[in-house]
Amino acid sequence: MKLSILALIFSIIILKGYGQKSDTEVIRNIFDNVMESDVAYENLRILCDSAPGRLLGTPESYKAVEIMQKYFEEMGADSVFLQKFKTPAWICNNTEVNLLAGDKITSLRADALGPSPSTPKGGITAQGIEVMGIEDLRAMDPRDIKGKIVFFNRPVDFKKINTFRGYGGAVDQRYHGPSVATELGAVGVLVRSVGTRIDTFPHTGSANPRKRMVPSAAISTVDAEVLSAILKDNNDVFINLRIDTEYKEEITSFNLIADIRGSLFPDEYIVVAGHIDSWFNSPGAHDDGIGCVQSADVLRIFKELGIKNKRSIRAIMYMDEELFQSGGNSYAEYSKVNNVNNFLALEADAGGFTPEGFNVDASDSVISIISTYQKLLEPYGINYIRKGGSGVDIGPLKELGVPLMGYRTDPQRYMDLHHSAYDTFDKVHIRELQLGSGNMAAIIYLIDKYGLPE
Amino acid sequence: MKLSILALIFSIIILKGYGQKSDTEVIRNIFDNVMESDVAYENLRILCDSAPGRLLGTPESYKAVEIMQKYFEEMGADSVFLQKFKTPAWICNNTEVNLLAGDKITSLRADALGPSPSTPKGGITAQGIEVMGIEDLRAMDPRDIKGKIVFFNRPVDFKKINTFRGYGGAVDQRYHGPSVATELGAVGVLVRSVGTRIDTFPHTGSANPRKRMVPSAAISTVDAEVLSAILKDNNDVFINLRIDTEYKEEITSFNLIADIRGSLFPDEYIVVAGHIDSWFNSPGAHDDGIGCVQSADVLRIFKELGIKNKRSIRAIMYMDEELFQSGGNSYAEYSKVNNVNNFLALEADAGGFTPEGFNVDASDSVISIISTYQKLLEPYGINYIRKGGSGVDIGPLKELGVPLMGYRTDPQRYMDLHHSAYDTFDKVHIRELQLGSGNMAAIIYLIDKYGLPE
Repeated sequence: MKLSILALIFSIIILKGYGQKSDTEVIRNIFDNVMESDVAYENLRILCDSAPGRLLGTPESYKAVEIMQKYFEEMGADSVFLQKFKTPAWICNNTEVNLLAGDKITSLRADALGPSPSTPKGGITAQGIEVMGIEDLRAMDPRDIKGKIVFFNRPVDFKKINTFRGYGGAVDQRYHGPSVATELGAVGVLVRSVGTRIDTFPHTGSANPRKRMVPSAAISTVDAEVLSAILKDNNDVFINLRIDTEYKEEITSFNLIADIRGSLFPDEYIVVAGHIDSWFNSPGAHDDGIGCVQSADVLRIFKELGIKNKRSIRAIMYMDEELFQSGGNSYAEYSKVNNVNNFLALEADAGGFTPEGFNVDASDSVISIISTYQKLLEPYGINYIRKGGSGVDIGPLKELGVPLMGYRTDPQRYMDLHHSAYDTFDKVHIRELQLGSGNMAAIIYLIDKYGLPE
Repeated sequence: MKLSILALIFSIIILKGYGQKSDTEVIRNIFDNVMESDVAYENLRILCDSAPGRLLGTPESYKAVEIMQKYFEEMGADSVFLQKFKTPAWICNNTEVNLLAGDKITSLRADALGPSPSTPKGGITAQGIEVMGIEDLRAMDPRDIKGKIVFFNRPVDFKKINTFRGYGGAVDQRYHGPSVATELGAVGVLVRSVGTRIDTFPHTGSANPRKRMVPSAAISTVDAEVLSAILKDNNDVFINLRIDTEYKEEITSFNLIADIRGSLFPDEYIVVAGHIDSWFNSPGAHDDGIGCVQSADVLRIFKELGIKNKRSIRAIMYMDEELFQSGGNSYAEYSKVNNVNNFLALEADAGGFTPEGFNVDASDSVISIISTYQKLLEPYGINYIRKGGSGVDIGPLKELGVPLMGYRTDPQRYMDLHHSAYDTFDKVHIRELQLGSGNMAAIIYLIDKYGLPE
């Protein structure tokens, strides 16, 4: 008699738990919660308002970590800690570009590329030469490059339907252009912003930090058109480029890590991540404040719904995706040294628009299991789960054999704002953000529940 | 010899034409053209700037037709004409809602519902009763309704992933609420705006124009929250509702029609349409200026690329989708009377965001042919082509046996702005607009090329 009462009580407890709900029900519960929660959205507002321009090493970068740390503590994560590391850093204090034509001075909107060196105080003054890419530059007589400021002006191809492809077709000028121009004797570099709007916002970004470069800056697409027209019309125009930056050999920085403990395999970690740094010129709403607050939201959803995760779920707010990738490399190193068992890692760093799908970078058997979950997530906007790239920060975990995933959203608006001051909080739509949190939580729920093939 | 030279010349001509290109190539050509064209986007800017609030019968509605007529003439459409009809009309001059609590007056942001009657000059002053829907109201003692202003306050369910479903779950209060409240003795009606934001924009819309209604208005969601709180706290609050509108028994209005002639079957028309009217309170960018300029863009694309359409392609800028649907009914009538052979009709009136798919309302055999085109359009964002609703304006063509289609886009942001002053030009993204024009042109190209089963 006593035993059967106990059994009854037991089964009531079990039936009330998430273990007995269908996947469809649990996923519906996740979205019922998230579509009425403004927690992640308000976290993002605070991040963008209180810590814009949070590039590695800036006061804003530390502030951003503090904001999210406080949030994780208040929401009751089981553990919240800073994973420290040493790294070089680079700070941009000022960028000015002026065209000098006789008495006339025209100022161009510009932001230094990372990690550009400073110019002397009065700047560098030289004639400009426009090229449409690295090939063009290499084809020139080096005597025509020596002492000049090279202006890379090949635009993003708007005909590419996926703006990441358009970006990919132009960004070599920004990443490799400065070092190639330096090799060939240029004294400075200007790059047309790699963006999908003709507007006045410079889009910065990194040039190859492992190669020597002369002072280099991005100018807005409008200013690129102006500069191009002026250079064509006029032979006695000079460009004055002033950049004030600081390179620091070593600073201490950190990734912020928050866990909710797993009930069965607490030492296996499912990582969900964004990067908390942003370019010095940008509030970093879509890149990548949103990936951070969505990752944090996955923990909130599991806690609020009382979903019992077997494995620990670990949110990582990576530092320094933008410049040296020191955060991503350091967490991989930390995992190796401490034998951290990262079961899988999912990064959200491709904008926070309407959901599109998940990429998986793993063995075929892992991809084929995870891709079966697409049908369950289709009602929430996931159109594909397929083999593809994941994220820059989690990338170094690949050599440790960790299956990697990347969350992907509608790319049409992303390259309008990427790495620029245009990437403001108001560009984020609350429902699009919520759908991202929900889909990330849902796929982690499924991966945790069913595990992965060896 | 002569013959073979002729044959050679012929085949060169043919090979140069679109007849010999693969569908993939033609579609790629369409997108190469459209992704670099700002014609439709600039047409939309002009429409929103020069003719906002273009409700049937307003000067703005005539202005809007003129703008698009001029565009069609300049772009060289083969025929451009106004299809005239008689219709009642309704004009809103002013809406004011004030809460009177002792000496205190609180004004609520409100817009009259169409076609609400006017109040007397000083307005109607009465106590308010809040209900969460029509059922609630019907359950009340009619003595408690008599002489009151009924306030329908059931919000849109944000948990619905498709915002059209959320809208559908609340809009009965706006459409049927006024007539039901009138039946039950109310003297006025206020409706919580049927939108997906908590903000200060009233979203108007039509109440059932075939039923009697007392003066009725929508208030913004923020004001709905305020009103709800005040009504709960306070028994001696009165609402003063002032509405100034005009009902006209008969005016002359028109649909604007532009054709490019078909080479083989010029008397068969493939209709591509949007509606040019918008609510009096709204610039009508997404609803539905964008559908008009995209439809016009389909003609431009065919002309610029020299695609030889077998059937005539007919762009219709329908008048009066919003209130009496007089334009849609009138074109169907006109088609009947004049034996117009409408081969198929496609309407774009569900927002102009990133493409999602096409709905087809036709026989199963037609649906199954058209849905095979999805694979060709998938690279351009078309995730589905399936059975479903088309558009309000083309709806009356259904009883003439015309296959109908509706273009669908990402719905997350649409109900933020629908029928409100928030539906401004800056909410439209040029690439999202272009992708819509391109997909509409591409599917029409395929339907024209391959025809449809009987």
